[in-house]
Amino acid sequence: MTAGSQGPCPLLLGLLLCALGPALTQGGKLLVVPIDGSHWLSLAGTVQQLRHRGHDVVVLAPDASMYIKEGAFYTLKRYPVPFRREDLEVAFINLGRSVFESDPFLQRVVKIYKKIKDDSALLFSGCSHLLHNKELMSSLAEGSFDAVLTDPFLPCGPIVAQYLAVPAVFFLNGLPCSLDFQGTQCPNPPSYVPRPMSFNSDRMTFLQRVKNILIALSESFLCSMVYSPYAPLASEVLQKDVTLQDIMSYASIWLLRSDFVNNYPRPIMPNTVFIGGINCASKKPLSQEFEAYVNASGEHGIVVFSLGSMVSEIPEQKATEIADALGKIPQTVLWRYTGTPPPNLAKNTKLVKWLPQNDLLGHPKTRAFITHSGSHGVYEGICNGVPMVMMPLFGDQMDNAKRMETRGAGVTLNILEMSSEDLEKALKTVISDKSYKENIMRLSSLHKDRPMEPLDLAVFWVEFVMRHKGAPHLRPAAHDLTWYQYYSLDVIGFLLAVVLTVVFITFKGCAFAFRKCFRKKERVKKSHKSKAH
Amino acid sequence: MTAGSQGPCPLLLGLLLCALGPALTQGGKLLVVPIDGSHWLSLAGTVQQLRHRGHDVVVLAPDASMYIKEGAFYTLKRYPVPFRREDLEVAFINLGRSVFESDPFLQRVVKIYKKIKDDSALLFSGCSHLLHNKELMSSLAEGSFDAVLTDPFLPCGPIVAQYLAVPAVFFLNGLPCSLDFQGTQCPNPPSYVPRPMSFNSDRMTFLQRVKNILIALSESFLCSMVYSPYAPLASEVLQKDVTLQDIMSYASIWLLRSDFVNNYPRPIMPNTVFIGGINCASKKPLSQEFEAYVNASGEHGIVVFSLGSMVSEIPEQKATEIADALGKIPQTVLWRYTGTPPPNLAKNTKLVKWLPQNDLLGHPKTRAFITHSGSHGVYEGICNGVPMVMMPLFGDQMDNAKRMETRGAGVTLNILEMSSEDLEKALKTVISDKSYKENIMRLSSLHKDRPMEPLDLAVFWVEFVMRHKGAPHLRPAAHDLTWYQYYSLDVIGFLLAVVLTVVFITFKGCAFAFRKCFRKKERVKKSHKSKAH
Repeated sequence: MTAGSQGPCPLLLGLLLCALGPALTQGGKLLVVPIDGSHWLSLAGTVQQLRHRGHDVVVLAPDASMYIKEGAFYTLKRYPVPFRREDLEVAFINLGRSVFESDPFLQRVVKIYKKIKDDSALLFSGCSHLLHNKELMSSLAEGSFDAVLTDPFLPCGPIVAQYLAVPAVFFLNGLPCSLDFQGTQCPNPPSYVPRPMSFNSDRMTFLQRVKNILIALSESFLCSMVYSPYAPLASEVLQKDVTLQDIMSYASIWLLRSDFVNNYPRPIMPNTVFIGGINCASKKPLSQEFEAYVNASGEHGIVVFSLGSMVSEIPEQKATEIADALGKIPQTVLWRYTGTPPPNLAKNTKLVKWLPQNDLLGHPKTRAFITHSGSHGVYEGICNGVPMVMMPLFGDQMDNAKRMETRGAGVTLNILEMSSEDLEKALKTVISDKSYKENIMRLSSLHKDRPMEPLDLAVFWVEFVMRHKGAPHLRPAAHDLTWYQYYSLDVIGFLLAVVLTVVFITFKGCAFAFRKCFRKKERVKKSHKSKAH
Repeated sequence: MTAGSQGPCPLLLGLLLCALGPALTQGGKLLVVPIDGSHWLSLAGTVQQLRHRGHDVVVLAPDASMYIKEGAFYTLKRYPVPFRREDLEVAFINLGRSVFESDPFLQRVVKIYKKIKDDSALLFSGCSHLLHNKELMSSLAEGSFDAVLTDPFLPCGPIVAQYLAVPAVFFLNGLPCSLDFQGTQCPNPPSYVPRPMSFNSDRMTFLQRVKNILIALSESFLCSMVYSPYAPLASEVLQKDVTLQDIMSYASIWLLRSDFVNNYPRPIMPNTVFIGGINCASKKPLSQEFEAYVNASGEHGIVVFSLGSMVSEIPEQKATEIADALGKIPQTVLWRYTGTPPPNLAKNTKLVKWLPQNDLLGHPKTRAFITHSGSHGVYEGICNGVPMVMMPLFGDQMDNAKRMETRGAGVTLNILEMSSEDLEKALKTVISDKSYKENIMRLSSLHKDRPMEPLDLAVFWVEFVMRHKGAPHLRPAAHDLTWYQYYSLDVIGFLLAVVLTVVFITFKGCAFAFRKCFRKKERVKKSHKSKAH
């Protein structure tokens, strides 16, 4: 397979193939193992582009999927799992609802712990069913895939790739508990690389650094709840002992939906490719419905409001408070909301079941973006240069919001504690205080000024792995060291032993010589004395 | 300056400018502070391309330069220095000669030490003259440059950039003593990142790791000879206390003439851009003279032989030995050699004063490349897929040769110790053993399979720095930490103190409680006893 080069087309027979484009005649076979939810929505654009380049794409998904459906640009291979689509939907809805529950702190922690445990067990059971599905796994092994493209947020795809002995490309926003750093063997100094959920920036006070280290120390414990069952499962399927780090280290290339306009600069490894903002490129014109809303907004323009694909309704009291604030700004607000309309909804606020977020944010009349600051939303805000009012709900959203706030591109609100006035004030601030627009425009211009578009970069590296059967020249030798070898502890121990031995021998030698001399003198003195007597 | 965008051309006046191309109307001002010798030959192509893109380029060079001459594509600004061009030439020639001197080891070390000290002092005097040239420095300050493009191998350019308060782009192959790692704040684990001159690969035995750490520990001492005078000079000129690391940390972007086909994978930083092989792209057809040599070579093809721009003649006895070996292979050998022709020169060996190395290596009839394995030569060998016989002379050449040998793409010889038979055998091996050709072709295909050409990448990032007045978003916060903060030693100390205090208080508390209980019982016993009496 040489997808990169273009040869001359042979006559007649070749004409038809030439008309279809060179990629089709040179395509490879790609297996995609995605994760449901917003993770799949991130990946789909790249999968589509790879299909467009002429590759044969098979997407592997459980019977019970929410977003992964039959698609024109791939072959969907389903596998049975011991749960239904409804179970997943309930889990997702409950996750959204849990944010708004105002239980006491300890009770809340216990509830979150239980929910994560239950959801993880549900998803793990799906993975286990896939890997134990001998018929399906054999048919995949016969598929002669050139590469596996997968999201390692749950490490099922990486295990499939390793089982098939096919090189893997990981596509992700990041992993909890620094698993991505472990998987790439990337140094991660806690002195300036803020840990997820720490709310630290890259410039920390002493106490923030203490917090950062404490979080770093507790990470492996925190993540074991979700990730610990995968190593035994992988060991069983692969018939050799593997750790979670072994599973995560399997990738040839890591496509990271991140960049250094949004994230803080930190060490990286040669097989990590930054494709932050990959989902921002595909812009379409607005439909008549939304065009009409925007046109009718007059000089004040519009505000786009969405809490992401997972939270489309919120408790009535909170919705009423929010509606109250929205009614007090002169802009037209387009609010993605599927719950019962709040009774106090003002005329300027339009509720919609779905909105073309990126297309709306790209409209010059958009003045602000109310968002839960998921990674997609934040990149769309940056890409289109729209100041944000951020209401982070869970996961990495708090950190995303913190970064945008640090850079003066938005205001963060606590959705549970904020009042109607807080929201009104935040909206008026980001719209009327010119610094917010200037800062987000500066970020936007930096973000978009790149040597290559992220989608092209992602496609290039997937094809690279397909062409070369991996990318072993980018894999650091650190993967083959034990932890004490990596930190040179054995060498340091050896050198210390050498130094101490030399010091000891020197000391003993001197002491011996000293005693010799001293005794001689003593004896001489004594003999002098005895002679004198 | 908006070099990235293209506006419509205004009528009449604009027509001429439009005809010259959009880049010319949007160009910025770039100051180039190069280093003479092969370093300038690396940089010149990028400078030319930047001029072609419409930027106004001023090259700053000492009166006494060997390679930096008036050029069509830049304005040359000369400054007086306290040495002549002849002094430089003698220093270069002596460097070449010193390789072939067969003194006893200790005498050799003393000679090398003295030579490095003298040459460094010569070059430092040039830098000092530049920075103390008030008239020139004022005129540069008035030049309103958008960026400084410089080679930091000697840190004069970085000091000029910092004096002018203009963002800098560093262009280099690498720096001795891990100065590039210090300058970028890049982690550099000695357990798998081989130190220069260690002859280690990235996979080391225990003893090789011991050697690597010992070299790492001695690096700052080894380099102080060359680099120590620059920090006081910079402090005086900039009127603030700066260290060598401060000077090296000034770059917005580091353009590194390196890649991971040639170099071993290791941590990198976001503001480092890899442009290895940048000098390989510009290929021209062979002149009549060389075309004739190649055509006359018949089925056996040719061997290209050059020891680089700095060594064009070698001692007669060595030349005779080499000529003897060259005469015993069926290929035609094109040897760049300016010394007296060896008396035993065979018919198949053509001596030339200069040869178009890259163009010859690119010819399909070229079978092998005898090289000193300088970084240019090695990349040209990789790029054109030609197996190498390497005779490293000094500097990074030993490491370059080691890497190619490890990858089975060439054979290394010790030019001092090798016999005529060794060279003959090495040449026949790399030409007839197919594995060498296969390995270099594999490296070549990996090297050339990249999302963007290195020259375009270099130009993009220079222009990026010009457009955005630097790249602060790529600068890690590590630059603002002290060394003990970077390694979190203060936090670890604090946490240890807390743990020890808690342990101490707990222990003391228990001891106190134990004593209390014990004494009470003792007293109770005693009182019982006294009552019993």
